[in-house]
Amino acid sequence: MRVFTGIQPSGDLHIGNYFGSIKQMVDAQASSETFAFIANYHAMTSVRDGDRLAKLTMQCATDFLALGIDPNKSTFWIQSDVKEVLELYWILSSFTPMGLLERAHSYKDKTAKGIAANHSLFSYPVLMAADILIFGADVVPVGKDQIQHVEIARDIAIKFNNAYGDIFTIPEFRIQEEIQTVPGIDGQKMSKSYNNVVNIFGQEKEQMKTIKKIVTENVALEEPKEFEGCNVYNMAKLFLQGDELVALQERYKRGGEGHGHFKLYLHEVIWEYFRDFREQRAYFEAHQDEVKEILDRGASKARAVALPMIEKIREVTGLVF
Amino acid sequence: MRVFTGIQPSGDLHIGNYFGSIKQMVDAQASSETFAFIANYHAMTSVRDGDRLAKLTMQCATDFLALGIDPNKSTFWIQSDVKEVLELYWILSSFTPMGLLERAHSYKDKTAKGIAANHSLFSYPVLMAADILIFGADVVPVGKDQIQHVEIARDIAIKFNNAYGDIFTIPEFRIQEEIQTVPGIDGQKMSKSYNNVVNIFGQEKEQMKTIKKIVTENVALEEPKEFEGCNVYNMAKLFLQGDELVALQERYKRGGEGHGHFKLYLHEVIWEYFRDFREQRAYFEAHQDEVKEILDRGASKARAVALPMIEKIREVTGLVF
Repeated sequence: MRVFTGIQPSGDLHIGNYFGSIKQMVDAQASSETFAFIANYHAMTSVRDGDRLAKLTMQCATDFLALGIDPNKSTFWIQSDVKEVLELYWILSSFTPMGLLERAHSYKDKTAKGIAANHSLFSYPVLMAADILIFGADVVPVGKDQIQHVEIARDIAIKFNNAYGDIFTIPEFRIQEEIQTVPGIDGQKMSKSYNNVVNIFGQEKEQMKTIKKIVTENVALEEPKEFEGCNVYNMAKLFLQGDELVALQERYKRGGEGHGHFKLYLHEVIWEYFRDFREQRAYFEAHQDEVKEILDRGASKARAVALPMIEKIREVTGLVF
Repeated sequence: MRVFTGIQPSGDLHIGNYFGSIKQMVDAQASSETFAFIANYHAMTSVRDGDRLAKLTMQCATDFLALGIDPNKSTFWIQSDVKEVLELYWILSSFTPMGLLERAHSYKDKTAKGIAANHSLFSYPVLMAADILIFGADVVPVGKDQIQHVEIARDIAIKFNNAYGDIFTIPEFRIQEEIQTVPGIDGQKMSKSYNNVVNIFGQEKEQMKTIKKIVTENVALEEPKEFEGCNVYNMAKLFLQGDELVALQERYKRGGEGHGHFKLYLHEVIWEYFRDFREQRAYFEAHQDEVKEILDRGASKARAVALPMIEKIREVTGLVF
């Protein structure tokens, strides 16, 4: 089973990204054929600075390798290294009714937020369909906001197959079931746009400073405290299991410690959790050429899948003869 | 000066196509650097049959070579042989406000006529902009209905240059000045959609049959006839000059001949006019491999211009680093 994920190179990763999707992607490598690419063509819809896009792309590659994307198990590449996807993107456009795109929530939401209504933003789901279909993805794990995009890809694939025969696998979406909503430091869902994130690869001081800002109830030091609904506890839950978690609950119930103590503990737990990843990251950061080689090999593997597909499509559509 | 033309592979050519644009294109080869490509990616917006698209593409190449496109003077290729244009198409999409496309007359006209509102039809002007800009066209000769598309290409190029520096030549459109409105057999503008055309490369019998259908006034054989406003005369004017034209006028004024005689004469004139072209066409029709070689060489020449451009764009946008 081929599982397919596009990764937006959007800068510093936070623990919401990790528990929301990256961990699942990494874990899935054990049982599925994972295809994951850095969506730099997609990123161009918002980044208009070449140095920045290049930096974001390498940062993304470095981060994901550090967090456990294993190039021996997964096919991991930069989107723009398999340019054939853009040929398919154009070809699919003739099988994409405008209404399908006009009804896309994501476009409407983004323009409603004031993001410039450019053609790339509007046609984004067609490129996403090309991404999915050129690699014959069976399953696309998505958050709820992306279900519609996979449905668009399915619609386009069915229309194309109706015209030219059974070319495309019709992809299924899979809602990431075990997804945990990760609370930010203000208790809302952790999200860069809420400015409430704890970065994975920040400096230790910076992380401590952020943790200290977690919003907590004002209860006297000696009093027992509620762990249910406490933002510090809710974040700690992601990292602790079994006895460790019970022990923390006891500390809340016992009283005699303030939220400051729990925050310090949370900070240490997080810092420890990502220790190995941080070391991996330092290695890749110091060996960027190795990262590039990994991406090049990934692109070769990806092309080995995409090229026979686009060749077949060129033939059936009469682009080659 | 680089002059740039896209050719829709739309089937049998008629004398309206010839005098309306092909002749100008052929004549321009003497004084300009001509870039002409067969727009098979664009044709996919309406053709959904691979065999048909392949056939139309080769027919178009054969026809244009027969009519005087000289591969030694011009760069003549099939659009899909320079796939980099689709990478630029995506990149430009982030510099294309939706409003620019929503205001495009051509899209509105086509959908108003009942053509399915697919995304490719809508985004057509962005691909056209990529076509123009990747080859650094200075001048794009157009009919009036295409002016807006060149303006869209200009707008996009200016926006891109504002973001990334002076990358693109800003193209100018040139209204084809000497364009002659070629009347069809019913006196309306000759157009396939009016079903009033005289094909260039039809059979002789078929041509005679078509010419006989030209609508004329009902005047007795012996009477003098008006040549002004006569559909037969107006078509003959395209092919005759000086003394020949005066001689025909005299025959109208003299009387004693009917429109049937003038039609027969017109038929002979047209048949004669295209004799050399027809022989050329028969040659290329019998040597399709040679046509393919010409197109391959054209694609190489076109790529030699497009590749350095797309490489520069990949660098400034941060797709390569």
